[in-house]
Amino acid sequence: MAASIRLTDNRYGKSRVRLVKVERHATRNDIKDLSVDIQLTGDFEASYTTGDNRLVIPTDTMKNTVYALARKAPIGEIEEFALRIAEHFLQRHAHVAGARIDISENLWRRIERDGRTHADSFQLWGPERRTAAVHRDRERTAIEAGIADLVVLKTKNSAFEGFLRDEYTTLRETNDRLFGTAVKAEWSYNATSLKFGDLWNGTRETLLEIFASHDSRGVQHTLSAMGEAVLERFPAVSEIHLSMPNRHCLLVDLSPFQLDNPNEVFVPTDEPHGLIEATLTRSGS
Amino acid sequence: MAASIRLTDNRYGKSRVRLVKVERHATRNDIKDLSVDIQLTGDFEASYTTGDNRLVIPTDTMKNTVYALARKAPIGEIEEFALRIAEHFLQRHAHVAGARIDISENLWRRIERDGRTHADSFQLWGPERRTAAVHRDRERTAIEAGIADLVVLKTKNSAFEGFLRDEYTTLRETNDRLFGTAVKAEWSYNATSLKFGDLWNGTRETLLEIFASHDSRGVQHTLSAMGEAVLERFPAVSEIHLSMPNRHCLLVDLSPFQLDNPNEVFVPTDEPHGLIEATLTRSGS
Amino acid sequence: MAASIRLTDNRYGKSRVRLVKVERHATRNDIKDLSVDIQLTGDFEASYTTGDNRLVIPTDTMKNTVYALARKAPIGEIEEFALRIAEHFLQRHAHVAGARIDISENLWRRIERDGRTHADSFQLWGPERRTAAVHRDRERTAIEAGIADLVVLKTKNSAFEGFLRDEYTTLRETNDRLFGTAVKAEWSYNATSLKFGDLWNGTRETLLEIFASHDSRGVQHTLSAMGEAVLERFPAVSEIHLSMPNRHCLLVDLSPFQLDNPNEVFVPTDEPHGLIEATLTRSGS
Amino acid sequence: MAASIRLTDNRYGKSRVRLVKVERHATRNDIKDLSVDIQLTGDFEASYTTGDNRLVIPTDTMKNTVYALARKAPIGEIEEFALRIAEHFLQRHAHVAGARIDISENLWRRIERDGRTHADSFQLWGPERRTAAVHRDRERTAIEAGIADLVVLKTKNSAFEGFLRDEYTTLRETNDRLFGTAVKAEWSYNATSLKFGDLWNGTRETLLEIFASHDSRGVQHTLSAMGEAVLERFPAVSEIHLSMPNRHCLLVDLSPFQLDNPNEVFVPTDEPHGLIEATLTRSGS
Repeated sequence: MAASIRLTDNRYGKSRVRLVKVERHATRNDIKDLSVDIQLTGDFEASYTTGDNRLVIPTDTMKNTVYALARKAPIGEIEEFALRIAEHFLQRHAHVAGARIDISENLWRRIERDGRTHADSFQLWGPERRTAAVHRDRERTAIEAGIADLVVLKTKNSAFEGFLRDEYTTLRETNDRLFGTAVKAEWSYNATSLKFGDLWNGTRETLLEIFASHDSRGVQHTLSAMGEAVLERFPAVSEIHLSMPNRHCLLVDLSPFQLDNPNEVFVPTDEPHGLIEATLTRSGS
Repeated sequence: MAASIRLTDNRYGKSRVRLVKVERHATRNDIKDLSVDIQLTGDFEASYTTGDNRLVIPTDTMKNTVYALARKAPIGEIEEFALRIAEHFLQRHAHVAGARIDISENLWRRIERDGRTHADSFQLWGPERRTAAVHRDRERTAIEAGIADLVVLKTKNSAFEGFLRDEYTTLRETNDRLFGTAVKAEWSYNATSLKFGDLWNGTRETLLEIFASHDSRGVQHTLSAMGEAVLERFPAVSEIHLSMPNRHCLLVDLSPFQLDNPNEVFVPTDEPHGLIEATLTRSGS
Repeated sequence: MAASIRLTDNRYGKSRVRLVKVERHATRNDIKDLSVDIQLTGDFEASYTTGDNRLVIPTDTMKNTVYALARKAPIGEIEEFALRIAEHFLQRHAHVAGARIDISENLWRRIERDGRTHADSFQLWGPERRTAAVHRDRERTAIEAGIADLVVLKTKNSAFEGFLRDEYTTLRETNDRLFGTAVKAEWSYNATSLKFGDLWNGTRETLLEIFASHDSRGVQHTLSAMGEAVLERFPAVSEIHLSMPNRHCLLVDLSPFQLDNPNEVFVPTDEPHGLIEATLTRSGS
Repeated sequence: MAASIRLTDNRYGKSRVRLVKVERHATRNDIKDLSVDIQLTGDFEASYTTGDNRLVIPTDTMKNTVYALARKAPIGEIEEFALRIAEHFLQRHAHVAGARIDISENLWRRIERDGRTHADSFQLWGPERRTAAVHRDRERTAIEAGIADLVVLKTKNSAFEGFLRDEYTTLRETNDRLFGTAVKAEWSYNATSLKFGDLWNGTRETLLEIFASHDSRGVQHTLSAMGEAVLERFPAVSEIHLSMPNRHCLLVDLSPFQLDNPNEVFVPTDEPHGLIEATLTRSGS
């Protein structure tokens, strides 16, 4: 490489390692359905600059490692499995400086019949997914949990008024609009050994509850209330990032047809969409 | 157009007319979230052959019609709304010979909190969708209902043995495999005035119940049992078509790592997939 | 199965068998990048009704067969490869009544440098794909070729005027609109041994040429002219089906900002879209 | 908001503002087909914490602004249009601290006929897209250009040997493998007034040329060579980030069928894939 050019950052890994694990019990089976992404940093520069692969752990080996680790112990919560994968690479290979493991879990529920759940047949609960991310290096471990594609819609208690108007503003004020979004939330824990399942369920319920009950003056307002409630209820959460697209539902103008439209008939649109993001942090974190 | 060439078939319409309707009540709101496709046949040949558009109902008008009809009366079940749309075009325009209306409904449930459902906030229940198709011409009306993307997984009571072997067969027999699929079912009704909601729920439950409980010797075997049960339980259903991709879960070979794999660790794959389809009909239909 | 219920139709197979074949020559490599779908009909009823798999050719075997046939001879044109696959199943297994083989080919071109093409490196040419479908049973063979996702846009010589107006019509007439579409064309050949590559290239060029040069009075008008030209130029084509979504480009109303918009600034939309389809047939076919 | 909780970061805007602009000339039309994302930072905290929207520029206004600016002057290169949009928000609204504008351009070429290009009809050139990102605040302006989904495949001069082996390694060494990827490149310019079109074309050609001609010892090796060549040839580029998924083509084992496979028949797979990323920087930047 020319002297004037430096490799300033590099990482590599395997993405979308798909895994279904069935944990078989006497009277029921449990399943986990995961997609795992691995990214390593470390002493890999020679593979870039001279094609010297001696320190390159093939991404195919990473894939095999996921399957072997899945067999050697129960998966547990995805935060725990991500921790185990990250630890493996750091312990096994001294030249690995850091590992980032992202896991996305597809959620299945048991098929129900007359109020009883089936022991070994499942239905996909979607589009919602549970996510986790572990960043681990030689000094610290950061754990994030998350939820993606939590698609929700409010038909009441949602306004958007009193906003700034300039020469390009045509939007009307409204004190009663539809508010649809696909919540993406990612939050950081302040410890590495926690009841991750309970915390995830609690956070998810909090997000849904506040979204449903909030008297919204705008997406920003509700997003903030959702994040604040999570931080207030769960001391183990030190920070939360929320990203909420505004999936606009536009009121249809039916006046050309001599019809009114008292906030009833809407066109949902995906494109364009508003996109509102914020991070809320516990003071002292 | 050259004398030797004929326009033998033509149809046109509007696809993906998106509609959310909120039906507002004293103590709660209901919503419908639909995507409507319209296709008309009739006396449209001149628009193709000479560009004479005098009989062309613009697809933009079709879109407007959906919104106006959505305002004029409750949506009801999607089969009923599809019937109303089809009837409109046939009654309003004498040169329309036939209308096909396809509706796909996104399914939302109320957000729950402590066992109570929220009055006006919803969560998308997916990827499963409810579908309906109405074909109507001057002589008859055919109504189909359906379900799409009902993603299910059996972890027990699923075998695939005793199949034909030829020189290209490497698959092993198994009496215990994972069986994952995304059921697509479409069924025909023998009447146009039925309790479409109850029938849809009953059919959906039947499909899930048989999938979960069937002692499967193959996808074909379970598909057939599912269709048969629907026809047996619902006399209003005259025919059912089922399409079930086999979303293979491949057992991972862990032997290179000195690990066994007692039917626990699998790679789910989307590509390639088996695809099994069949139609079951009530005799005399 | 209950006596009153019959299995009236069934088929099964493997979808999305992905294949890249490199054909290595002294001074250059050629590639084919295909996705193959196989569907068989025949004496498979027992697998549905009783779970008797003795006549079931596993879909995994179908996949293996594609790879073995790809190795045994050059792929040739995709119509030829589809024919070979179909023939294999009919000749090898007496209980197979019919085979339908669909192939979709990703199109790659050689990377160019200073007007010279590279001998063994390629760039994907997309979204356009070449398609072929062979239906073969014990009596006849039907061959279709096609093109999918040929995305084109006309900015001149496109009108839509003189259409029917009813109480739901708000669309304005225009003699100068954008006309964007993703052409899907499928055509039938009247013989099984043809220069499929030349015919495909010629048909593709004809579709593009007529789309570009046609003085369009509507999507129907241009679609028909495109199909007619193909039938006129290529006697081996007996029928052509065209499906053209109208990917509307809506003129933006800039008048609230004291700006005119002389047919310059548009919002392209995917949802909803018009959908226009027709089949043109050579008389006597 | 509780005293112990702080809003530490926030941004909002409009995504996927779709725009087609036709620039009409005497003998030809030109088109631009863009998707624009806008994200603003500034004094928006009150909209989050108390629902006070007085400083909120509605995302609908952002959309209108894009269309108005598109009308007021030629689009030019997308870097220039992004600069104009960013400047508008900073100049017009004193409480806006920063604007990030991302533009993705769909690439169309003129339809050709007998070597002549058509004056006003176009075909989409895909999946490749041109991208640009402008970050502008009160102190500085950063301009990035990029390319996305440049899908390429090498069938020669690609090895992967001499890599690290551990207990989970099963991959075989190879000195002749297929190397397929979808290049994503983003590079920074060291000035805000440049010949962006020429630079983009030159960078794109350099990426293709080095990919095609490089004697690759691994994805890392080729990625680095591609980035280095761009920095060497274009002094205006201060840094380049490359992200290259390894879209594996797996050699099919045909030995069960008594067939060899001399590097000819492959299964391309999307899932899982390797993912290699690096940034190369000019020293002193």
